[in-house]
Amino acid sequence: MRKADLMTIFGIIAGTFLIAFSIVQGGQAGMFWNLPSVMITIGGSTAALLINYDVQQVKNVLKTTKQAFTTQLMDPRELIAMFSELARKARREGLLALEDDMDRLDDPFFQKGVQMMVDALDPELIRDILETDIEYMRQRHETGAGVFRTWGALSPAFGMIGTLIGLIQMLAHLEDPSSLGPGMSVALITTFYGAIMANLVFIPLAGKLELRSQEEVLLKSIILEGIISIQSGMNPRILEEKLKSFLPPEPREVPVEAEGVRMDA
Amino acid sequence: MRKADLMTIFGIIAGTFLIAFSIVQGGQAGMFWNLPSVMITIGGSTAALLINYDVQQVKNVLKTTKQAFTTQLMDPRELIAMFSELARKARREGLLALEDDMDRLDDPFFQKGVQMMVDALDPELIRDILETDIEYMRQRHETGAGVFRTWGALSPAFGMIGTLIGLIQMLAHLEDPSSLGPGMSVALITTFYGAIMANLVFIPLAGKLELRSQEEVLLKSIILEGIISIQSGMNPRILEEKLKSFLPPEPREVPVEAEGVRMDA
Amino acid sequence: MRKADLMTIFGIIAGTFLIAFSIVQGGQAGMFWNLPSVMITIGGSTAALLINYDVQQVKNVLKTTKQAFTTQLMDPRELIAMFSELARKARREGLLALEDDMDRLDDPFFQKGVQMMVDALDPELIRDILETDIEYMRQRHETGAGVFRTWGALSPAFGMIGTLIGLIQMLAHLEDPSSLGPGMSVALITTFYGAIMANLVFIPLAGKLELRSQEEVLLKSIILEGIISIQSGMNPRILEEKLKSFLPPEPREVPVEAEGVRMDA
Amino acid sequence: MRKADLMTIFGIIAGTFLIAFSIVQGGQAGMFWNLPSVMITIGGSTAALLINYDVQQVKNVLKTTKQAFTTQLMDPRELIAMFSELARKARREGLLALEDDMDRLDDPFFQKGVQMMVDALDPELIRDILETDIEYMRQRHETGAGVFRTWGALSPAFGMIGTLIGLIQMLAHLEDPSSLGPGMSVALITTFYGAIMANLVFIPLAGKLELRSQEEVLLKSIILEGIISIQSGMNPRILEEKLKSFLPPEPREVPVEAEGVRMDA
Amino acid sequence: MRKADLMTIFGIIAGTFLIAFSIVQGGQAGMFWNLPSVMITIGGSTAALLINYDVQQVKNVLKTTKQAFTTQLMDPRELIAMFSELARKARREGLLALEDDMDRLDDPFFQKGVQMMVDALDPELIRDILETDIEYMRQRHETGAGVFRTWGALSPAFGMIGTLIGLIQMLAHLEDPSSLGPGMSVALITTFYGAIMANLVFIPLAGKLELRSQEEVLLKSIILEGIISIQSGMNPRILEEKLKSFLPPEPREVPVEAEGVRMDA
Repeated sequence: MRKADLMTIFGIIAGTFLIAFSIVQGGQAGMFWNLPSVMITIGGSTAALLINYDVQQVKNVLKTTKQAFTTQLMDPRELIAMFSELARKARREGLLALEDDMDRLDDPFFQKGVQMMVDALDPELIRDILETDIEYMRQRHETGAGVFRTWGALSPAFGMIGTLIGLIQMLAHLEDPSSLGPGMSVALITTFYGAIMANLVFIPLAGKLELRSQEEVLLKSIILEGIISIQSGMNPRILEEKLKSFLPPEPREVPVEAEGVRMDA
Repeated sequence: MRKADLMTIFGIIAGTFLIAFSIVQGGQAGMFWNLPSVMITIGGSTAALLINYDVQQVKNVLKTTKQAFTTQLMDPRELIAMFSELARKARREGLLALEDDMDRLDDPFFQKGVQMMVDALDPELIRDILETDIEYMRQRHETGAGVFRTWGALSPAFGMIGTLIGLIQMLAHLEDPSSLGPGMSVALITTFYGAIMANLVFIPLAGKLELRSQEEVLLKSIILEGIISIQSGMNPRILEEKLKSFLPPEPREVPVEAEGVRMDA
Repeated sequence: MRKADLMTIFGIIAGTFLIAFSIVQGGQAGMFWNLPSVMITIGGSTAALLINYDVQQVKNVLKTTKQAFTTQLMDPRELIAMFSELARKARREGLLALEDDMDRLDDPFFQKGVQMMVDALDPELIRDILETDIEYMRQRHETGAGVFRTWGALSPAFGMIGTLIGLIQMLAHLEDPSSLGPGMSVALITTFYGAIMANLVFIPLAGKLELRSQEEVLLKSIILEGIISIQSGMNPRILEEKLKSFLPPEPREVPVEAEGVRMDA
Repeated sequence: MRKADLMTIFGIIAGTFLIAFSIVQGGQAGMFWNLPSVMITIGGSTAALLINYDVQQVKNVLKTTKQAFTTQLMDPRELIAMFSELARKARREGLLALEDDMDRLDDPFFQKGVQMMVDALDPELIRDILETDIEYMRQRHETGAGVFRTWGALSPAFGMIGTLIGLIQMLAHLEDPSSLGPGMSVALITTFYGAIMANLVFIPLAGKLELRSQEEVLLKSIILEGIISIQSGMNPRILEEKLKSFLPPEPREVPVEAEGVRMDA
Repeated sequence: MRKADLMTIFGIIAGTFLIAFSIVQGGQAGMFWNLPSVMITIGGSTAALLINYDVQQVKNVLKTTKQAFTTQLMDPRELIAMFSELARKARREGLLALEDDMDRLDDPFFQKGVQMMVDALDPELIRDILETDIEYMRQRHETGAGVFRTWGALSPAFGMIGTLIGLIQMLAHLEDPSSLGPGMSVALITTFYGAIMANLVFIPLAGKLELRSQEEVLLKSIILEGIISIQSGMNPRILEEKLKSFLPPEPREVPVEAEGVRMDA
């Protein structure tokens, strides 16, 4: 498990702890547990979600999310170094020699690209195929993040529906005014559940998947440009320069604070 | 009826049950039924909808929605297999031989494409015609999903309007303070109806139609590229590779968890 | 007046009736009429609107809206049939013969296009001019719908401002607690007015204008493609096929439920 | 001062009057003036604005806004008439003769364009330079309107912050329940200020600047196309037709209600 | 430290002072400090943020933000003057002579561009590389501003969650009605914290980073066009004209109020 994930897990634990602490501090934490409220908030939003999405889509997203937290993407700088090396090899030994390198990256996109290059397909066709691949991957990822975005919008809505049910029932029977407070207290619990689900779980997860997708698109775009450039016989030094334009400028010996245009002193 | 639909129906039933359970549990479920509230929430939002959309558009959307839940789209992998086979046949027997295959897909878009290919129209013209077809289908689908999006926005608004009417009437006559609770209870029912309609029905249905549209665009895009590629005499193996770039990488023998760029161990 | 308009008018009447019924049912409908509230909600939002838009723009939109409900756009299928016939005539008698048909459509866009074709302008220039025309019409329509969108956003805001004024005044003088209810009742009326104006009038009208604009863009796009195609001497049958790609597939003898890619049984 | 501005000023006065009337009618208008509330709403939102924008940007926007209400843009029909005349002159006397006309429009964009045309620069370069000019002007205008959009979003937020401060203070000291009403009354005043500022001032001003920007882009686009067309030696009648495609169809002798595709009777 | 930053710091101090003043004026400022409320608002939103973003991303954004307030970007007019001079030198002494000027701007983007020009790379390749650089910088900046946008959305949400916890606890124990006021007072403090964090800190900082990014993109776009134009041997005067099209028209001798198309008097 990578370091970033440890921080994320720390984040979830810390967030949960802070809320739990705040609850316990007020005494009687038990009143924050209410099964019918759980059912209406989680159950109701999930039901609405299953009308919107296929069960298969929801399952896929859960699997992808697990992956986003447990597998690490390649460092783009290593990828560029590898392409620089491949370009040198291609110059020395010809494109066909790259067939042996197809397994260096256990990635179907990379392998497909190298295969097509080795097969001497038309560069425009290769670009077309790889761009289609990236574009539709991006679209599938968007659908995936959309599952959590939708869930994150439905949760507070069903939280509010639960609160409305509680309020309507409570207000209809106000014979005993002293029951007003506790009644409203219970009614508000579904709103509380909905807000927690949306803001501590679904919305951040949607954001996470979107960032992850952006990183994968970046890696695949580098692979695409690398393959097209090697095929065109581009100078390895220029190829490296070209691929580095996808990344922020590298830190240099002299500490440079950030990327940006600065005036010469 | 396909399996996914069963899950959707299960979702609707479960959602309704959860809300009903929550209501019944509080006793006196009857007070959640209020005809004038139904009239103002459903009636009012429908009236506003009919100002925005033609009656015909609303009818079409209801028909399309029924279809989205009852007819299954073709599996894109089967479509690609079919195109791979058509490409082989075209190579062996010429483009004209494909005329016999026009009825293999009972789909006007596919038939139009094959017909134009057999008629030897200019590839740019074929692409132009098929892309226009896809683009305007997408636009009609968007209008369709927009009907539910609009309805989903109008429902809570008219729910709130109903609640305002109830509150204004109730507050104006506070001679008997004990009527305050029940009065507010009734007033809140329209807000409750509006929230249910929007979040359990209209918003998920809009999302469903949008996803369905995305799938149809995907299928038609594959058909478009397939037809153009066959016409250009592309190698069947390359054509298959090209069309597969629309889809996620296929599961291979070794279980691969997900699509993504992974480092070689 | 066309049938669709009758439904729209029915919608407005029904919506108004439902709200009126709901009000009357509660007795004392008179308390829902409050002149200062009308002034602050309608007047305030209109004042803010006149800061945003020129008076002329608001007037134009009202005129366009009237038109959207009273004039009917041409059926695109008739338009395509007409172009098919024009293409045949052009083949038989030459492009110049089409000059007589310029008045068949009482539409400046169509006439301009035919005139330029008859004058043998460069096809790229004709496309350029007609596309500019469509694009800026679309932009003017967007500004028009924006007037209602803005009005629909300002109405509830000024409704809330009116309610705040009422609440501030009422809360400052709570000597007589029994006046609390009626005071809040009056204060809420502006919120009610704002919600009605936005949701029953301005937001649906904005949506209507947007749909109407989309239909006009569709018609003009068909005219544009038709003219360019006739000028290029395209085969009338292919031209018809091309123009039909803007429309949903026509219903055929065998009832087909909807457009979509279906599997062959 | 132009007529449209008079209407805008009338709008502001009417809006202020309606709100003032509504306040005065309730008696004791003085309670709507509260200096600390003014400070927190205006001061707080301005402070947040100065974190977001440079002081210089805010100053520029205020200057531009003043201009938007006091200077009138050229009528595009006059501009087109002028270009038609320039095209005729260029045909008769050559492009160099247009140098004398450079001062007819006291506008740097027009002058730059004519100068480049007279200097016989490459048309693609002229188009490139003028399009860059338009695009970045549009972007600066967007930033300008963004200042008011941001201010309009911050005002209600700081209004709510002020109300929260008031409520927290008031609720903490409820020894005397009779102070509840007046306390809430004062607390709500900041919300009232925030709503007025946003809806009567900042949001409409942002909209105004956006519309003004659209008009300037239109005028500059006409100038751009006019210059390129004159340089290419386009027929003056065709040039006029081309430039008119940026505008709605002119009213003709027979009253025509609106632009749109109508059926021939 | 530059002048604009002083204003920003003044803005932050003024905003804090206004709110503090408003609090102190009500007496007992101490009740606005509540450690558990700070923990749940800041801690909860930060926890959710760490699920969405990597720790590294958050750190980078904080560093970039510090920079945005402490380092000044180059004045684009100086940059253009420098390019004008470089173009003259290139004409006189050839492109190779520019190698000495590579250190005039301590900026990797500029140096990379000049190096590629000196190395006589293909102009299309140079444009491709520099545009990729700009595009992905813009995307990284967007992610950076997104951190604050997300934080600004989570803060009020966790403020509301804290308030819900407080209300649920308080309402469940209403034995002593006199505790209602102070209890609600404490509950509202988290909402107050969330609103301050979002509106005085996170949302303005996100806006600041977005504006800064836009300025950097502008500078890099000027460098890109400048380099490509020098390489193509463009006339220095025309190059200056071309680069100036990125900027608003310069103030001239005669005071000109603003950019815009004005009628000739």
